[in-house]
Amino acid sequence: MQKVVVTGGLGFIGSHVVDALLAAGRQVTVIDSMVAAVTDGREYEVFPGCQVHRVSIADYLAQGGSFKDQDLVVHAASHVGPAGILKYQGSLGADIVAVTQQVIEECVTHDVALISFSSAEVYGRSGMLAESDDIIVPTHYNARLEYAIAKTLTEAATINSRHRGLRGFVIRPFNVVGPRQSRAGGFVMPTFVQQAIAGRPLTVFAGGGQERAFLSATDLARFITEHAGAAFESDRPIFNIGNPLNTITVWNLAERIIERLGSTSSIEHADARLIHGPLYEEAESIQKLPVLDAAKAVGWAPTITLDELIDETALYYRVRDDAREAAAVPLDAGARV
Amino acid sequence: MQKVVVTGGLGFIGSHVVDALLAAGRQVTVIDSMVAAVTDGREYEVFPGCQVHRVSIADYLAQGGSFKDQDLVVHAASHVGPAGILKYQGSLGADIVAVTQQVIEECVTHDVALISFSSAEVYGRSGMLAESDDIIVPTHYNARLEYAIAKTLTEAATINSRHRGLRGFVIRPFNVVGPRQSRAGGFVMPTFVQQAIAGRPLTVFAGGGQERAFLSATDLARFITEHAGAAFESDRPIFNIGNPLNTITVWNLAERIIERLGSTSSIEHADARLIHGPLYEEAESIQKLPVLDAAKAVGWAPTITLDELIDETALYYRVRDDAREAAAVPLDAGARV
Repeated sequence: MQKVVVTGGLGFIGSHVVDALLAAGRQVTVIDSMVAAVTDGREYEVFPGCQVHRVSIADYLAQGGSFKDQDLVVHAASHVGPAGILKYQGSLGADIVAVTQQVIEECVTHDVALISFSSAEVYGRSGMLAESDDIIVPTHYNARLEYAIAKTLTEAATINSRHRGLRGFVIRPFNVVGPRQSRAGGFVMPTFVQQAIAGRPLTVFAGGGQERAFLSATDLARFITEHAGAAFESDRPIFNIGNPLNTITVWNLAERIIERLGSTSSIEHADARLIHGPLYEEAESIQKLPVLDAAKAVGWAPTITLDELIDETALYYRVRDDAREAAAVPLDAGARV
Repeated sequence: MQKVVVTGGLGFIGSHVVDALLAAGRQVTVIDSMVAAVTDGREYEVFPGCQVHRVSIADYLAQGGSFKDQDLVVHAASHVGPAGILKYQGSLGADIVAVTQQVIEECVTHDVALISFSSAEVYGRSGMLAESDDIIVPTHYNARLEYAIAKTLTEAATINSRHRGLRGFVIRPFNVVGPRQSRAGGFVMPTFVQQAIAGRPLTVFAGGGQERAFLSATDLARFITEHAGAAFESDRPIFNIGNPLNTITVWNLAERIIERLGSTSSIEHADARLIHGPLYEEAESIQKLPVLDAAKAVGWAPTITLDELIDETALYYRVRDDAREAAAVPLDAGARV
């Protein structure tokens, strides 16, 4: 799989996939609408084997672009983040589905393999979550659930297109973090780390008892560069990718970040809706921990620890501003509560 | 609500809605792509207050059509039926979502009220099913689940658009039957009735122990003509519409139809996949019975009995061929098992 398209390749997850592919010597075509980009991609253009297209997938295809002669598409383009999705409530699901369907149709047409990013949000409930588990959809709909249902439909469309010859599988990533992740989406790690660096209070939502397992974007990207072949051969449709060894509550994460970075910040309880607006909702899951049956079966395991993740995120943000600063709520928004 | 658009208005459910609206003296604009139409709609064109557009919604809007100055849109356009959806597997969900989203956006733009048809299929499981229940999505995806997930997403998009000013609610119909329903979709009542009339064996799938509650399309349409106002005022998002009094197993339905119609037909167990192809799947639910909390709260109750439904379906098909005969499997397909 030498020639790879990465959609959303200038976004957080996509850019880590691009990094790993280029390091592995692949030819990479990046397509990114720039809606949620965390890099302008100029660093990729120095690679002779890398092309960067700063357009939506719809425009890329409408302007004559094609996946013809590609070996693999990694579809990472999406609206992202519990806060990032809010302004699209009521149409974000249809957007996600339409874009993914265009990618699927293009892959079917040109017989290109497809890895499509879903989300651990699909599970819709708490616990240790395995690929074989049913999905739960509570019907008190909100933006977060619209996102989750749309991701579920992209899973079905991908896997249901196997009968049309599509070689494709789905990744459900669990709380991926690392350098370049923007707090504009509402993600906890870059928010806490940037608050800690700035000496601002770390703002904890919903009590802080939520348990999450944080995965390195580098570990995730390595699944694609080193295990995609085995994943396709396994014929499994869905891969949970996460790191149960990095399980921690949100409150304890705040404490750990402050201690590790030697920050003077305090920790404050905050009302997320006063910060992100009235449409904001917490996840359905108090505990969201991955069971890794499929990924383990193809030889993948995560390696990067929570302390390393805190360190590399801090290292990044000590010398750089958040790439999506303009789209993010102020660092001290918690003080408004 | 004098001026009403009915999408899919020449389909089975849509045409019954059109009948009821015209009988109530409303002005009706019918839009139908003719993909699953069960009437050519010429009977509606004699009404001065009725316009019939035989185009897709996308084409209707692209050609300058609009919902401007309409009072209500009843969105019934959809791929339909456990067999009817199979040839679209892998893209049918995206189709359903895209069409519905166009309808939603047009209603938001022109401040038109919206009643959007979902499906009892969304529940994804057995039992007495209430609007407040969680939805279950098993992840052994197939066309039927792709349909269910797409309908769930259209529910979320409709209800999530209330914050954009949309006045809208969702109907989940349970096993609607009546004249004009085509066996091309794979629906049991028109299949059994047509088989009984022809003296062919009635073909029962999956043992016949599945319990269903059959609702008259006329009862359903009456919810819209007589109770839509109260439904909008109630602010409830989701209405189960079904008839628990007409509960029967599929095997017993076959027996009842033969007896009621004085048919000489036998009843045969059949393998649905030998008839409808390898993609066919049974519903997740052995028992699919509606709890009618929301509809009862706005004063609606079904009135038409199962025997009346058998009679009116038979009356229709004794003098007419199935409108979608060409798209249906042969009446004696069961003999192949």
